[in-house]
Amino acid sequence: MSLDRGTPAAAGSVSAAELVARFGGTLLGDGTVPLRRIAPLQRAGADELAFLSQAAAGAQLRGAVAGCVIVPPACAGQAGALRAAIVTPDPYLYYARVAQWFAARDARPAPPGVHALAAVDAAARLGEGCSVAAGAVVEAGAVLGARVVLGAGCFVGADAVLGDDTVLEPRAVLMHGCRLGARCIVHAGAVIGADGFGFARDERGAGVKIPQTGRVLIGDDVEIGANTTIDRGALDDTVIGDGVKIDNLVQVAHNVRIGEHTAIAGCVGISGSARIGAYCLIGGGVGIAGHLEIADRVVVGGMSLVSRSIRRSGHYTGAFPLDTHDNWAENAATLRQLARLRDRIRQLEQQNEARQPGDHNPS
Amino acid sequence: MSLDRGTPAAAGSVSAAELVARFGGTLLGDGTVPLRRIAPLQRAGADELAFLSQAAAGAQLRGAVAGCVIVPPACAGQAGALRAAIVTPDPYLYYARVAQWFAARDARPAPPGVHALAAVDAAARLGEGCSVAAGAVVEAGAVLGARVVLGAGCFVGADAVLGDDTVLEPRAVLMHGCRLGARCIVHAGAVIGADGFGFARDERGAGVKIPQTGRVLIGDDVEIGANTTIDRGALDDTVIGDGVKIDNLVQVAHNVRIGEHTAIAGCVGISGSARIGAYCLIGGGVGIAGHLEIADRVVVGGMSLVSRSIRRSGHYTGAFPLDTHDNWAENAATLRQLARLRDRIRQLEQQNEARQPGDHNPS
Amino acid sequence: MSLDRGTPAAAGSVSAAELVARFGGTLLGDGTVPLRRIAPLQRAGADELAFLSQAAAGAQLRGAVAGCVIVPPACAGQAGALRAAIVTPDPYLYYARVAQWFAARDARPAPPGVHALAAVDAAARLGEGCSVAAGAVVEAGAVLGARVVLGAGCFVGADAVLGDDTVLEPRAVLMHGCRLGARCIVHAGAVIGADGFGFARDERGAGVKIPQTGRVLIGDDVEIGANTTIDRGALDDTVIGDGVKIDNLVQVAHNVRIGEHTAIAGCVGISGSARIGAYCLIGGGVGIAGHLEIADRVVVGGMSLVSRSIRRSGHYTGAFPLDTHDNWAENAATLRQLARLRDRIRQLEQQNEARQPGDHNPS
Repeated sequence: MSLDRGTPAAAGSVSAAELVARFGGTLLGDGTVPLRRIAPLQRAGADELAFLSQAAAGAQLRGAVAGCVIVPPACAGQAGALRAAIVTPDPYLYYARVAQWFAARDARPAPPGVHALAAVDAAARLGEGCSVAAGAVVEAGAVLGARVVLGAGCFVGADAVLGDDTVLEPRAVLMHGCRLGARCIVHAGAVIGADGFGFARDERGAGVKIPQTGRVLIGDDVEIGANTTIDRGALDDTVIGDGVKIDNLVQVAHNVRIGEHTAIAGCVGISGSARIGAYCLIGGGVGIAGHLEIADRVVVGGMSLVSRSIRRSGHYTGAFPLDTHDNWAENAATLRQLARLRDRIRQLEQQNEARQPGDHNPS
Repeated sequence: MSLDRGTPAAAGSVSAAELVARFGGTLLGDGTVPLRRIAPLQRAGADELAFLSQAAAGAQLRGAVAGCVIVPPACAGQAGALRAAIVTPDPYLYYARVAQWFAARDARPAPPGVHALAAVDAAARLGEGCSVAAGAVVEAGAVLGARVVLGAGCFVGADAVLGDDTVLEPRAVLMHGCRLGARCIVHAGAVIGADGFGFARDERGAGVKIPQTGRVLIGDDVEIGANTTIDRGALDDTVIGDGVKIDNLVQVAHNVRIGEHTAIAGCVGISGSARIGAYCLIGGGVGIAGHLEIADRVVVGGMSLVSRSIRRSGHYTGAFPLDTHDNWAENAATLRQLARLRDRIRQLEQQNEARQPGDHNPS
Repeated sequence: MSLDRGTPAAAGSVSAAELVARFGGTLLGDGTVPLRRIAPLQRAGADELAFLSQAAAGAQLRGAVAGCVIVPPACAGQAGALRAAIVTPDPYLYYARVAQWFAARDARPAPPGVHALAAVDAAARLGEGCSVAAGAVVEAGAVLGARVVLGAGCFVGADAVLGDDTVLEPRAVLMHGCRLGARCIVHAGAVIGADGFGFARDERGAGVKIPQTGRVLIGDDVEIGANTTIDRGALDDTVIGDGVKIDNLVQVAHNVRIGEHTAIAGCVGISGSARIGAYCLIGGGVGIAGHLEIADRVVVGGMSLVSRSIRRSGHYTGAFPLDTHDNWAENAATLRQLARLRDRIRQLEQQNEARQPGDHNPS
């Protein structure tokens, strides 16, 4: 369903000169070599394009036999020995764009139309060129923009809305009333719009369900990973901004708001009503507590717990350092008396101060 | 499939006086205002009902224009300025009950019957009023109680049993022989009854699968989150008590037992044969080691690892505090020598004691 | 779909003598008792087989009424009081093999053929004896070996390959071009071959998708847990070795390599391009950073973060110890000044040294 479909049969080729004409950059060497695909630098052959994103790794260019390598300006000198090179300030971005162009060339577009084994309600509206695969189900009132692709076994609930060119990979679920913008990709098994986790406790301590009547509203160009879950709001909506990228197995609780172009790595859990800024990078396995705010352009290191608001842009971390099990066990046991150790240090300092009245310790 | 279906078209309205007649509480102000739905206090309008759950947040009542606000007794004075208020000891619980009543009013019940694109084995038994959506599959010997709803693409394995009024949201999976009680909700993509993770090692170190022949037995009024997994037992069963609420992306391993009315937040992992008491609250991202016991009414803070049994009710936590990355890096490095620091403190104390024989330090 | 199908109707029985003839071991006591199934030692009856895996738990044999118990050599003496016993060096492995034999006896094999509500492309190739359940979808070019079982609602993408006797449980997804070896089991909801999480940043900070054109290549005898996700490679492939066992809700990012017979517990997250050795045991909830290497035969304790390569076999851990919330709060706050505490200890030591020039402290 997505643009990429495995190693292509190399339907054609392109020259470095053509790439520079299309994507910019400065050409070094022979621009006429036909390039059939992209490959990792270490094993790219004479008909393949490679890239080197970090100038510090320039030594990897020695011995490279790729037909062409995309390099940063600092490597332009070393690149002289290559068959051909394209010099550009951000080789990784250049690679992304060329790779998208190759992928589009090799794409096998999903066949338009509704498969005989799909169930599309008569009261759903499908834009032109939509493709609905076998096993997909679309309920009444749902609205699909132009060229929307629903993979095998997808579910689109009543009154849900999908923008133009949005793709749901197989088994993705978009519950009733939720909205996805244009050009979004929802990977297999993701669930958007399940009920948030909200319960009152009755007089005997049993949970009484809070009906979750908000929606999930997702902007344009958002990508959502496989088996990720994004809950609908309780009263208000859960809101995901334009360009947000979310990896696999991420949990986004009800009423969370995520600012535009933030990227969230796998296995992150975001608790209810948290507000995450724009252009943030949240590392894998991070936990974010509820009802807090994270400013724009915050980076959180993997496996950290964010238990209070982060008001300023910056890089934050909190994760126990790995050690051999025996060392860890001894240090972890000691950690449980750390506050007492601090008190003992203070006492030692006071004893020393009592003996040396002129000598001051920080505390 | 669930009772809530997005913001309703406000099929009707209800007055505060009617709510008090139905749900109790003390009415202040004008009880005749028609209320069409529930909304957050900050943006509730004159035809909307709001609630204030914490007395400490009473300042939020100033300027509120909601048609009626549910408030705790401590806010009864401030509520005098409102159009109307309902005073009740637990506004959040009151809100839950009113919201359920609104949701039931607005519900679009799933149509009874079996969709033409569902596959229900002739040897399955369906109670009256069951609804089986497109793509759902029910194997031989399965038993569905009255008014069970199977969403699109659900799977119910051979001999599985679902109690009355239980709902499986789209793509939920209940494997063979497992049992769900009455009034349960299983959210999209949840998998109940996959094999537990059990292997012996053969002479060469390769894993030899332990067949997982136990079941998953789930009580009444249980809610299970989207893409959560609950494994079947190895020999004995995995057992989930009445009223347990489990959030999204939670892993419950084989032979785990969870006591009644315990709530488990998202991304929790519970290892095999752990026994968790009743009325516990397990925070998001918590890990629980195998073969241990947690007493009733235990609260575990988010991202903590429970590596030993917890014998007494109480609030337990273990999570690295967040810091700027640079501070964290320095403290984390130091943490790896913590036991040595403790020894050095002890040595300093001994030196001081040697000099001051009458002065005692704790150790 | 799997071999185990709940507590069987005990289609037949077997004697201890027959088991010894088939699986080895030394018989003690009456080898003729008919054994109808396996049960936990504490509740196994006279027609049931039990096992005791650890010699240290030998006291559990007292009062046991099982028809036969599998025991280690150290318990051979105590086993004399039992009706019958089988003595073997590794009772757990012996149990696994007997349990597999019982499970095969009780299995209800999936019916061969393609269900009328499945959608198998005419350009897919199915080996002999394949079973494709309702709702399953198989795209063009896919190749299924002999006796492959696709559960309800599975998806097999274009050109994907499944080896002989491999089973996809309901709703499992194998994306285009990916390969599974022989005798693999993929549990419900697992997603193999979704796009890896790769984006370049453009000039305005927006993500530009890196097309993920690699595959997932999985060896023989691999088991993959429910709702686990394994991403396809970016340019190269993601590779999982023979005999690897992966539990539920695990995230394996693009270009990861996992060596043979490694076992990975639930809720683990493995970042891109990490290389994990053979015969490793990765505990539940562990996070593994990207672009690092873990040697063979490494054990990582639950909830640890592996942020650097582990070059040597051994047992490694890093997890905050649980405590009462109040103690934790005090220790965690102190932890944030740990490096300063270390400096204060050093200063105290220097003060003491200045006073006692002959007395040396470690540092």
